[in-house]
Amino acid sequence: MPIENSRIGGFYKLSVSERRELLAEIAELSEEQVEAWARTGELDEESADRMIENVVGTYSLPIGVATNFVVDGLHYAIPFVLEEPSVVAAASNMAKRCLANGGFKSDNDDPVMIGQIQVVGCDDPQGARDSIISSKEELVSSCNEVDPILVKFGGGCKDLDARVIETGSGPMVIVHIHVDCRDAMGANAVNTMAETIAPKVEEITGGTVILRIISNLAVLRLARVSAVFTPKEMSDRGDDAVKGAEVIDGVIQAYHFAEADPFRATTHNKGIMNAISSVALACGQDWRAIESGAHSYASHERRYGSLTKWSKDEEGNLVGSIELPMAVGLVGGGCKGPPRCTGECRTSRGRERGRAGQGDGGIWACPEPRSTACPSYCWNPSRSHEAARQEHGSHSWSRGRGG
Amino acid sequence: MPIENSRIGGFYKLSVSERRELLAEIAELSEEQVEAWARTGELDEESADRMIENVVGTYSLPIGVATNFVVDGLHYAIPFVLEEPSVVAAASNMAKRCLANGGFKSDNDDPVMIGQIQVVGCDDPQGARDSIISSKEELVSSCNEVDPILVKFGGGCKDLDARVIETGSGPMVIVHIHVDCRDAMGANAVNTMAETIAPKVEEITGGTVILRIISNLAVLRLARVSAVFTPKEMSDRGDDAVKGAEVIDGVIQAYHFAEADPFRATTHNKGIMNAISSVALACGQDWRAIESGAHSYASHERRYGSLTKWSKDEEGNLVGSIELPMAVGLVGGGCKGPPRCTGECRTSRGRERGRAGQGDGGIWACPEPRSTACPSYCWNPSRSHEAARQEHGSHSWSRGRGG
Repeated sequence: MPIENSRIGGFYKLSVSERRELLAEIAELSEEQVEAWARTGELDEESADRMIENVVGTYSLPIGVATNFVVDGLHYAIPFVLEEPSVVAAASNMAKRCLANGGFKSDNDDPVMIGQIQVVGCDDPQGARDSIISSKEELVSSCNEVDPILVKFGGGCKDLDARVIETGSGPMVIVHIHVDCRDAMGANAVNTMAETIAPKVEEITGGTVILRIISNLAVLRLARVSAVFTPKEMSDRGDDAVKGAEVIDGVIQAYHFAEADPFRATTHNKGIMNAISSVALACGQDWRAIESGAHSYASHERRYGSLTKWSKDEEGNLVGSIELPMAVGLVGGGCKGPPRCTGECRTSRGRERGRAGQGDGGIWACPEPRSTACPSYCWNPSRSHEAARQEHGSHSWSRGRGG
Repeated sequence: MPIENSRIGGFYKLSVSERRELLAEIAELSEEQVEAWARTGELDEESADRMIENVVGTYSLPIGVATNFVVDGLHYAIPFVLEEPSVVAAASNMAKRCLANGGFKSDNDDPVMIGQIQVVGCDDPQGARDSIISSKEELVSSCNEVDPILVKFGGGCKDLDARVIETGSGPMVIVHIHVDCRDAMGANAVNTMAETIAPKVEEITGGTVILRIISNLAVLRLARVSAVFTPKEMSDRGDDAVKGAEVIDGVIQAYHFAEADPFRATTHNKGIMNAISSVALACGQDWRAIESGAHSYASHERRYGSLTKWSKDEEGNLVGSIELPMAVGLVGGGCKGPPRCTGECRTSRGRERGRAGQGDGGIWACPEPRSTACPSYCWNPSRSHEAARQEHGSHSWSRGRGG
């Protein structure tokens, strides 16, 4: 949930337990929730054994909290779970440098996922495709019979499309269902719908269905975030517009490099995923799904390039924006695990129809129930990282463990 | 290190502590090592606090062990750290189905990473590029003065290249250094070399250096793995060649779909990364680096496609192979954390010049000191997953949480 103020001065100077106490106070957390952080290894053996197969123990990573994040006018403290130093510090640093213009603004698509049905062996693939389109209404209805609860909450199958592709095994008809998954990542709902209509698809096309599965290239479920950084803010101490303007030019030149060169874009995007993947992990999300969607989107209908865009506005401010698929859930999947304070989204379950976690005493920025993502997933610590380093007078603007 | 036999029958039926005892016996582990697994949350607060910033606690995921893996003739038990069910089971299942032909074969490049130096503002970019090439020997020598230990162990800067790219900020000269990083992931060594020669590069080109940083698109550090699955092995119970041949045809049709369609390829590769990313995490690696390299490579000089290749040989066997960048390390980075049994690569440090972990009592498959990767990183549980499900008579060959 949003907190009163994310600008927690000197947070880094506190001890681990002092940090817990301070956050507990700010976010009005219960003793039980604070205890859960304190118990390193909050995942007990029995719960772990229920999550995956052949469990022999648990594996831990630190949770670090990024400060200074204001998103759509609300303050957030954001959890990162990863092993790499500097990422949390750089994110906190850069979040501070866009406050003059109100922090981050977000704009997310509805949570619509694509389910794919692969049909092989059609005598007339193009005719089969046309027949599917003619039966759209019936097929969409069949999908929606699967999950009346989802439909009741405004979700469900909203559309259907089909196309013929040429492959190494000859032409195939590929049917896409577009499913609004509401609070879920959506794989279960989408897969079940695809399986349910598969026999009808075979009947209509005369072909054989092979795969019936969600696509992680969620181009209908995009999250967008933008922010404006003034030249003053971009200078080391936040007070030197001339030096800040130089930093801004460097950021833009670095961005143009990433846009033009896949070798650079890979590392540029890796830096972005340092934050997104780590926040996803902290919130019990499937990070492989988010990574694959993001990087594939970076090459969607173009050569692999940068996930962010950077430019300078008329007043010389640095303007940054990002757009990427964000298939995250508050219900199902990893959210089913034992309730843990580390990912409040696990417990919030989107019952509050405001922002996720609201009313739950959570302090984390979580995926929003009605949209695709927590905006804070979407910032770019790679650039932040480098800019922060330059600002701090380091010689190594380009250092880092690979992004 | 390799173990005597990875075919641990009924492993999944044991309790968590029974599994630990059995593995301890097989791999001759010390009591201390077994204890470390047993302590859920083996990462203490103090260690966590040293790893990243603003630490408030730790976050745990289960460690599951995949069985049946034979790689280059040696048996391995392989740790997965993730939240998604079925991945460990499917990997173990498919690893069993290529044993008739000896399991997995691996073939890895030398551990050569690319470091990038970005030069802007050259009056004559092409001339500047040519001057860099003329000074290659001097620049490579300067790089190698940075890290004599690395050079002593056979690593160091091996080559240098330069090109001119067109960008939104005009032409830039991009210098690539090729650095054999031996046992390290390499970011620190590569970045330090790039920073060291930056002033010389400015002098030679007359331009200004902006970024000096490693690329995660590690096309010179590729790992390759292949395996052969007989029709018998691909049938449900491993004894029906006719049914197995049908499964094989389905796998190939599914692969051709992924090869032809980025929407499918994204999820196909997500399934692959279910294993690679989870094993990377278990071994203390930077999973964002490995994810970015893999997915970017899936679109390298082509449209985004499958990381695996599948075909049928003359005897009707299913032949699978994979090739992807594998920038992993036994020293530095996440490996610097407190020694934990969960990632034996953290403690082995490649002192044994055989396979990683050998002599350390580790049971994990770890990156090989002299090559780019643990071959076991490189299998494809997506296909395994689906094939395994079909074999098990499930109606939902296509189910899964998105890969």
